[in-house]
Amino acid sequence: MAVVLGYNQYGKAENRVVRVFRDRDPHEIVDYNVSAALSGGQEPVHLTGDNSPCLPTDTQKNTVYAFAAEDDIVAQPESFGIRLARHFVDNTEPITRARVKLEMYPWSRLNNPHAFIRDGRYVRTATVTYDGSTTWIVSGVKDLVLLKTTDSEFWGYIEDPYTTLQPTNDRIMATSLLAQWYHTSEDVDWGKSYDTVLSALLDTFADHHSLALQQTLYEMGSAVLAGQPQIAEIRFSAPNKHHFVYDLARFSLENNNEVFHADDRPYGLIEATVRRDDAPDPSLAFDPGQGW
Amino acid sequence: MAVVLGYNQYGKAENRVVRVFRDRDPHEIVDYNVSAALSGGQEPVHLTGDNSPCLPTDTQKNTVYAFAAEDDIVAQPESFGIRLARHFVDNTEPITRARVKLEMYPWSRLNNPHAFIRDGRYVRTATVTYDGSTTWIVSGVKDLVLLKTTDSEFWGYIEDPYTTLQPTNDRIMATSLLAQWYHTSEDVDWGKSYDTVLSALLDTFADHHSLALQQTLYEMGSAVLAGQPQIAEIRFSAPNKHHFVYDLARFSLENNNEVFHADDRPYGLIEATVRRDDAPDPSLAFDPGQGW
Amino acid sequence: MAVVLGYNQYGKAENRVVRVFRDRDPHEIVDYNVSAALSGGQEPVHLTGDNSPCLPTDTQKNTVYAFAAEDDIVAQPESFGIRLARHFVDNTEPITRARVKLEMYPWSRLNNPHAFIRDGRYVRTATVTYDGSTTWIVSGVKDLVLLKTTDSEFWGYIEDPYTTLQPTNDRIMATSLLAQWYHTSEDVDWGKSYDTVLSALLDTFADHHSLALQQTLYEMGSAVLAGQPQIAEIRFSAPNKHHFVYDLARFSLENNNEVFHADDRPYGLIEATVRRDDAPDPSLAFDPGQGW
Amino acid sequence: MAVVLGYNQYGKAENRVVRVFRDRDPHEIVDYNVSAALSGGQEPVHLTGDNSPCLPTDTQKNTVYAFAAEDDIVAQPESFGIRLARHFVDNTEPITRARVKLEMYPWSRLNNPHAFIRDGRYVRTATVTYDGSTTWIVSGVKDLVLLKTTDSEFWGYIEDPYTTLQPTNDRIMATSLLAQWYHTSEDVDWGKSYDTVLSALLDTFADHHSLALQQTLYEMGSAVLAGQPQIAEIRFSAPNKHHFVYDLARFSLENNNEVFHADDRPYGLIEATVRRDDAPDPSLAFDPGQGW
Repeated sequence: MAVVLGYNQYGKAENRVVRVFRDRDPHEIVDYNVSAALSGGQEPVHLTGDNSPCLPTDTQKNTVYAFAAEDDIVAQPESFGIRLARHFVDNTEPITRARVKLEMYPWSRLNNPHAFIRDGRYVRTATVTYDGSTTWIVSGVKDLVLLKTTDSEFWGYIEDPYTTLQPTNDRIMATSLLAQWYHTSEDVDWGKSYDTVLSALLDTFADHHSLALQQTLYEMGSAVLAGQPQIAEIRFSAPNKHHFVYDLARFSLENNNEVFHADDRPYGLIEATVRRDDAPDPSLAFDPGQGW
Repeated sequence: MAVVLGYNQYGKAENRVVRVFRDRDPHEIVDYNVSAALSGGQEPVHLTGDNSPCLPTDTQKNTVYAFAAEDDIVAQPESFGIRLARHFVDNTEPITRARVKLEMYPWSRLNNPHAFIRDGRYVRTATVTYDGSTTWIVSGVKDLVLLKTTDSEFWGYIEDPYTTLQPTNDRIMATSLLAQWYHTSEDVDWGKSYDTVLSALLDTFADHHSLALQQTLYEMGSAVLAGQPQIAEIRFSAPNKHHFVYDLARFSLENNNEVFHADDRPYGLIEATVRRDDAPDPSLAFDPGQGW
Repeated sequence: MAVVLGYNQYGKAENRVVRVFRDRDPHEIVDYNVSAALSGGQEPVHLTGDNSPCLPTDTQKNTVYAFAAEDDIVAQPESFGIRLARHFVDNTEPITRARVKLEMYPWSRLNNPHAFIRDGRYVRTATVTYDGSTTWIVSGVKDLVLLKTTDSEFWGYIEDPYTTLQPTNDRIMATSLLAQWYHTSEDVDWGKSYDTVLSALLDTFADHHSLALQQTLYEMGSAVLAGQPQIAEIRFSAPNKHHFVYDLARFSLENNNEVFHADDRPYGLIEATVRRDDAPDPSLAFDPGQGW
Repeated sequence: MAVVLGYNQYGKAENRVVRVFRDRDPHEIVDYNVSAALSGGQEPVHLTGDNSPCLPTDTQKNTVYAFAAEDDIVAQPESFGIRLARHFVDNTEPITRARVKLEMYPWSRLNNPHAFIRDGRYVRTATVTYDGSTTWIVSGVKDLVLLKTTDSEFWGYIEDPYTTLQPTNDRIMATSLLAQWYHTSEDVDWGKSYDTVLSALLDTFADHHSLALQQTLYEMGSAVLAGQPQIAEIRFSAPNKHHFVYDLARFSLENNNEVFHADDRPYGLIEATVRRDDAPDPSLAFDPGQGW
């Protein structure tokens, strides 16, 4: 038996770069959290501490801020990520793969050309991966908190010895959505594409009569795919944020599904992929976390 | 020397109550985090474990959810807090004081009468304190993140042996505002009052040419007081969220105040009160934390 | 009516300073989060943006790191805070008051003279306030999570129309303790004093047969005061971290008080002061938050 | 083109179960956060809202608490996870795969047979995956914060146009370690195995003279594999928690590598696998997050 180095990557995480477009009237801003991760040829670093193949994470940081000066690039997370990922691989011997993850925090304009309020409705995300020839582009949204007060049922499920849940024909359905979708083309207006996805998600969530959160997510994904042919698949992680009807009958009060306790933990967690049946394998597109 | 019990209060904190107004079209919701704290006559509990003067925190919780069934009361945090505080004191021997703190999370309607998106721009707050005769009402806002890209200077300050800061005539100014204001009357349309304060805060932040964050806060406070005679004073806690110009000259790139690093810690923290010169003493209105 | 400036202070918050004592064998470290807040003579800053009375928060930051080089001072949060607070007031016209709040993160030594593991059992705190003549010193602990599996009862409380809680003679009692205590002397070995308080808190929590969390806190406070004559009072904030017996009878399983759900929210919150009957007024010792 | 359901799983996340062993003297406790995720045959739920193949997440929750009553099972996260994962697949038509993730919070005994203090040095973890025939078992640790004051260098790296970092022969090295390791056998004393891994990690971190954090991690992984033949590989995610020397020369003070600013973001992030060259493919062992 010998010990060997397996999957590895390294980078600078959570670079908090804010770019102001000061020569426009009104001013514009973009607000990012950028994480880079590189791999390729790093065995000497790990095995002997020979750093000759290592582009320091400090240098990666400088590069993120330097490229933020490029007007066209920095305006969208996808283009910013593409620029960075390709730079790291194409210009750094021996790096063979880069993954750049971006969070973009939306701001709304106040009634003034230079003032803004942070819009906390969601965080827009992008993950760009490049291996020297292929570029994988994933767009996403997270922390999108949605709730509907009716049009949600849950019944007809398996019963086993541990079942105590009562079926319901009318419950609150709420979630904090994380969604990521994979593009098979780069020929995309990223801002417009994002807005179109967001509308499809919100409209479908709102209008769908739900028999299960799973069903609603599938409808939401289908709507996203129907709207844009270059989106091959979408992946959801959706906590079922439980709202329990509070028992007020104990106090001789009616509670016609009106007073709820919003519970923290535990919570249901629904994860699902909706994809075209002819979609290509996403390969390296989605970050596997520690599931290397 | 003898040991004695000093200041004390007890209660149920962070009751997460959601109320749906289901008989309206479209539906409406309010979403609260309610914390109650009671005091008065609790010496036996502390000194000997005799719980006869103790209204359990579990009972306080039930009461919060029960009163959430009352339509007119629950719609505004101030009226919900008043109802609860007076109930606990007036109906519970030996309780002599109640303080109810409420956070209210705003939701926006989606394009559907039953569906909502959580609006993360701020959290609205209220603190109501009642001692059996006087009711103190404080409204507030927190997590209101604001940024202006220009119209902010900082220069002319004290220099001492530890000074290294350079003066500036043009910097980003950003903060995450916490504000609380004290009403001297209950005869208030709470929702309208809150909206008016919020507009005054946002408009003044946006339009004020700032020589110091302190000056901007004072202007914001003055605008709030000018708009509503029953608001006696307003208290601010405002972190100065530093945005540092990134040094790109090292890479032969210009940075005309356009590329910034948004730093986390440390941060400036400005705390200030703006009040009418004839305002009454706020007495118990503001929660002193552990500064009893 | 005129608008005036009320209570105000400003400073640099959360300076994360780590000091290594490198000339000792084995090495020692201290790890701090230091927040300074100054007040006095700041009207021109607020009213007109005239910063001539303002010592910038950036300078305060530099001072914190500079004084961390002083060996004897930096070793204990109380002495570090005293040094900083007196410097800011005594050497800065027109500052008349400084409050310095410190969090100290404990580390334990690994089996090596230069390596450490962060010990997450608690955070040690200090708050030092100085007004040019008097220095108030408060020590503290937070995030001290304690649990006892028995010797805790709760019964005999008030019943009202909203009561549903059942009395119990044997429950889990758990809390995450925040405690702050006020010293009436500076002639104290701060490290030894802290350790003595911590032992008194832990031993009393463990050994006390509790009829209410309030009673246990009072006993804990009494033990602290009994051990050190210069401690005039101690203030507790103690969430009652509820552990609910899970109903397993529905599955024909016994649960003799052995399987619990540890709930998040809501939670009881007990706040109490234990003090000597001849203790002086703590005046400015405890930070009032926004309860100025 | 047709739209289809891809990878999916669902379950109840973050069940906070505490088990007391009350018939032992002294008492013992285990404290868990358990998340279950099931998959198999869920197309009807997603496509039409037909819940007949769905074991509700509420039932999964009940099962977690019910099995916590089993003395031998619940004592170790690996055995608790195995029990749950096999139950869900073996007893629920049509479930074909279960993944159970557990966090275990350590407690230390106070000087009393019934009282405990939460030991915040780390969180122990386990992930168990079962597909009806194979059971994959991964153990882990997270939030293990380590620091060494010397014996860490970093030099000899790539320089490019964005390089500004200076090489160093003596720096602070600090990390908050996340590690997960995969067992190829179930015939393991889980508690003893965990303790052995933890010792190997701590001892190697402390004693290794480091030329790069990557090299230190590789050594730590090698030590873990050397100690236990059934551990096939270990995966690390290690932020490089930067401690920057504060420039005190500006104040005419020496700083011989003694006063540091502990920065928050950005941070280096090193991810690496150390494995036996004959290790089997870990297949489903490690949770891929959204990288399905």
